[in-house]
Parts: sequence; structure tokens; C-alpha cells
Amino acid sequence: MTNRPSPVSLRVKPGPTRLAVTGIGNALLDVISRDHREAYRDLGLVKAAMTLIGSEDLGRFIEAMGPTVQMSGGSVANSIAGIAALGGAAGFIGKVADDDFGDRFAHDLRSLGVELDLAVADASEGATGRCHVFISDDAQRTMATYLGASNRLGPEDIREPLIARSEITYVEGYLYDLPPAKAAVRKVVEMAHLHDSMVALSLSDMFCVERHRHDFLELVTSDVDVLLCNETEILSLFEVSSLPRAYELLDELGLLAVVTRGPRGADVVTATGVVPVAAHDVEEVVDQNGAGDLFASGFLYGLALGADPVEAAELGSLCAGEIIRHLGARPEVDLAALAVDAGLL
Amino acid sequence: MTNRPSPVSLRVKPGPTRLAVTGIGNALLDVISRDHREAYRDLGLVKAAMTLIGSEDLGRFIEAMGPTVQMSGGSVANSIAGIAALGGAAGFIGKVADDDFGDRFAHDLRSLGVELDLAVADASEGATGRCHVFISDDAQRTMATYLGASNRLGPEDIREPLIARSEITYVEGYLYDLPPAKAAVRKVVEMAHLHDSMVALSLSDMFCVERHRHDFLELVTSDVDVLLCNETEILSLFEVSSLPRAYELLDELGLLAVVTRGPRGADVVTATGVVPVAAHDVEEVVDQNGAGDLFASGFLYGLALGADPVEAAELGSLCAGEIIRHLGARPEVDLAALAVDAGLL
Repeated sequence: MTNRPSPVSLRVKPGPTRLAVTGIGNALLDVISRDHREAYRDLGLVKAAMTLIGSEDLGRFIEAMGPTVQMSGGSVANSIAGIAALGGAAGFIGKVADDDFGDRFAHDLRSLGVELDLAVADASEGATGRCHVFISDDAQRTMATYLGASNRLGPEDIREPLIARSEITYVEGYLYDLPPAKAAVRKVVEMAHLHDSMVALSLSDMFCVERHRHDFLELVTSDVDVLLCNETEILSLFEVSSLPRAYELLDELGLLAVVTRGPRGADVVTATGVVPVAAHDVEEVVDQNGAGDLFASGFLYGLALGADPVEAAELGSLCAGEIIRHLGARPEVDLAALAVDAGLL
Repeated sequence: MTNRPSPVSLRVKPGPTRLAVTGIGNALLDVISRDHREAYRDLGLVKAAMTLIGSEDLGRFIEAMGPTVQMSGGSVANSIAGIAALGGAAGFIGKVADDDFGDRFAHDLRSLGVELDLAVADASEGATGRCHVFISDDAQRTMATYLGASNRLGPEDIREPLIARSEITYVEGYLYDLPPAKAAVRKVVEMAHLHDSMVALSLSDMFCVERHRHDFLELVTSDVDVLLCNETEILSLFEVSSLPRAYELLDELGLLAVVTRGPRGADVVTATGVVPVAAHDVEEVVDQNGAGDLFASGFLYGLALGADPVEAAELGSLCAGEIIRHLGARPEVDLAALAVDAGLL
């Protein structure tokens, strides 16, 4: 982290300053329902995974849900909201439609102090994307996503200002589900490299990894500095069945990786070995939605401030512990105060 | 409760059966935000009360809010959702616009099994109503309501089918803020009397009582069987400064009343005296939004099932205790199971 600005400038302040992290991801509104009757099964969804649906499916999926709560979501957008809640300066690039949901998505990030570079889709390109989240009684979340306008993010929507000012540029694996994604991610990576911004990638979801394994392997081999994933995603990426084997392969790539493991915490995988970091004790897990996203908030913000990866993972673990205590994937408490109390900020 | 059907028929079952309660109230979507900075002050709102705003204020109010969560609301609608969550057969009459918020409002009640008789406003009559809820750090909620389409509920929208089948017809005091309200409420009361349905009234809010004291006094004197209110509302209604004095005046009216008192529980006021019912111990009060509404769920459902008023108030207290543990005024847990565990159902 030599030649980087003092961490102090990565805290929120007015005017064009350095940013800790800029995220590029799907701009989605979460539509969340408790799924006591396991309706997700009848809809053909895979538990704890994300399935893509089309606009023609929207009526059927909402009809199958119980009473819903709506809040802004999107995996990387959640991580960025978490960084802002930690007091960090952060940016977000994505695409919405000119509708109520799009306005709300923008409002929610902006009100946290996040700098936005949101492209707006034409009326003909669909509504703002939404993710239907089914929360099982065991707190697992199963997702059905209509990408809508977020699906239209293309290279022309990737602009330089936020990336150029960011310590870390954080890309969502889900972006590869968008047709023009490869070109857009290529542009992100080039801009980030040009401005000495570290490139972080989230593998997003095990099925997402299956869909795009080849592209992801190419990306992590050549362009990614920090890889964020969970156990099933990293096993799927390398098509291996044991974590130690996956960690050997990560070691060969020579990048920094963190592998989240639910209640078993997270493994930080560096050139000098694997360091486990414990999960935070949570009395009652209400909703695992957002655990990985908020882990990323703490981890990436820690790295941006110059913490070592294990310290950064501890901050990630603290944030993940907060988000699973309540419904939804956006923080409900003052994360910065929580982190200061825990001696992590 | 002579000549009334067996309580068993008031549980949810298919087809036209008896209903425990039909509510008539504002159909609103709640837009909820934690208000750490007490933004409600700068907006000229009165803490813990409901202020009406116009469509021209919407932008300013949403801009002042932090990140928001959206869920269906409306005071009496919340109570009806709670009755459905308790396993009761219930109905709701109100008015929405033909828009996303209106669809969602209907979906949320219908998915709980509530029978709906929703009038739909013309496009020219405004959007579906919404209530901006500011949650202070002390868990108090301050509200700014744009009534929108719900404001257009008139006598022509009050139809007989649901009321005719209901043990109790529950009217929201807030309805008096709608210009054609007196005629609509008059029609509700006549229909209810005709079909031997008890008329219950919520006083809604102390400022609502100030705005409509004369109308409310007339209503409780002649037409109301059950009155639901909190301390400030009953003091305002009678313009007295002590609860014992208010209880004397209630006694003269000869109706059943329940006065909720926050952490001090509720007082059941009957012809034979005042019986206090304790509040449920709640470890951490997150959001008092909906406490009164959910108290009404348990109280009215208990009465409809033939419980005595004190038992009914205990069920109300249990439901109120659940709702204040989390954000929002719609139940998050299986209220029926909770009530069965507590020996109250």
C-alpha cells in the first residue's frame, strides 16, 4: 500500500476526494418475503442460490410470495452501502430505469453519502431490476432475479471519474450474466489498472460460476488483485472437491483471496498461507441475505484503509454478523460505531 | 355474544363464511427510515404524531430521509393483517390507485388470506397513499402521510358484503381526514347495525382527535360499541387532564373501551370498572410503529371469538409486544403460534 494516500482521506468528506471503493454491479430492488411454506420449491428455484427470471415470470413469482418488504439491494450495491455505513467514501456504477424503483435505489445509496454514476435505461429497455428473496425458516435466502434495466449496463456506461479516484474497484460476478458484460468488465479493469486501483471480484453465486467459469478463470489469472467468494463458489471455480486443493490453486495464482464459510467464519488466503477468521456469535440468525455482501464491505474497506488482510477480514466478519440479525441486506445499525466499539476502526 | 356463530367459523376457511373483523381505513404504503439525525424536526413534524402532507411535499420529505424500507401499512390495515396472522378470517375496505404501490398493498393483505373490497381511484385522483415513517433512536415513530388515492374513499365505495358477514366492523379515526368521510362512516355504521356487527372505532392519533373532536364525540355517544385509543387520545377527546376523569366519562357512555399506555400496558374500561393489563416484556424496543395497531388485532380478534375483554386485551398485549421488536408495523412471526404458546388461543 505504498504511495497510497493517508487512510483519513478515505472517510466521507465533501468534494472530490479519494474513494475507498467503487462498486460496479446490478442495481436491484429486493422484494423480500418470509417463506414459511417453502413456495420457492414449487417455483423451481434452487435453495440458497440465485435464479434469473424474465419479465413474463414476474406475476407468477410475486403471486407465490407472502407479504413483502421492499428495500434496495444488489450484491455489490449492498457492499457499497455497508462501506458507507462504516464511514467510508464509496462510489457505485450501475443502470436503472426511469421509474419509482430506480429513484428509490438511487435515493437509498445517495442518502448514505455514496457517489453515484447511474446510467438510465430507455423506457423500452425494461423496468428497474428486482430480486425476489424467499427467506426460509432456517434463515436461508433463495433468490429469483429479474435483471430488467440493470441488464443493459454496457461499456458505454462505464465512465472513468469514480474508478480513477478509488483505492479498490469492486466488480460483481453477476455482471457476466449481462450480454455486453465482458466488454464492460474489460473497460473497468483497464481503467482501474491505469489509475492504480486494485481490482476486486466477487464470484457472486455457485451457479453464476458454473455459467461463466471460463471467463472468471481468465479474469482471476490476469486481472484480479482480490478475490471474494464462498466455499461452494471457489470449489466450483476450480472444479475441485476440497478446500485445501482450492487453496493450493489460489496460491499458484498469487492473488489475495478470502473465502467465507458461513458460521465457520472465513479463510484469508495469501502467499504466506491460510488464516482462518472466526464468525461473530449471533444469538438468532434471522436472514442470511447479505452476509457475504457485508463481509465484503468490512474486508474491502479495511484493505483500502491499509489494514492487513486478516484485520480486514475481522472487520468483514463483524459486518456480516450485524446483517444476519435482521431482515434485508442493508445495515440497520451504525456500523462505524459498532466497528469502533470492537476496536476494528 | 348470544346468537353469534361458533368461534371456530371465524378462523380462516375457504368460501363465504363469517368474518371476525372487517376494517375500513386508509390503504397506505409505509416508507420507513431510521432517523438518527432527527430530520423530522427540520421538516416541521411533531414527534410521535401523524402529520398530513400534500403531493407537492413528497420530494422534500423523501429527500430528507435516510435509506428506506417499504412495506404495506395503514393503521387499521395493519390491525387486519395482524388478525389474519393470528389465523382469523378478516376483511378490508379501502381505496388505492392503479399503480405498483396499490398492487403491492393488495398483494400483501391477500397473501395473508384477507378478503379485500378495494376501490380503485381514477388516474387523475392521485397515486396510492404512502406514509413516511421516521424512526428515532428512542424507537418513537413520527409520520408524514400523503393520503393520495386513499383520500378518495367515499360512501359509494362502502359496500355491504364484508360488513354483513363480520362480528366486528372496525373504523379508523383517520378516515375523518377525508372530505366525504362522515357520509362514508355513517353508511358503515348503518350497515353494521343492520347486520348485528359490533362497531369498533380507533381514535388514531391525538391530533386527529383535535381535528375531529366533535364528530368523534357524536360517534362514540351513539354508534360505537368498542373504543380503541391511547392515553393522549382519550385525554384529548374529553379535554381532561387525568385518566381517572376520562374513565368516568367513558363509564357514562356505557361502551367498552381499551386505552393503551405503551410500556405501562393497557387499561380495559368496562361498566364494572377498570382492569389494567400488563405490557409484554420486550428486551429491545426497535420501532414502536404498529404497537397500537397490533394491540387492536389481538383485542378485536379475542372479542370476536367471544373472549372476555381482559383476555382479549392480553392477546392484544402479546401482539403489540411482537411488533415493536422489529422495523415496520406488519407482523414478522407466526402470531398464531405465539398466541397458542402463550395459552391465549
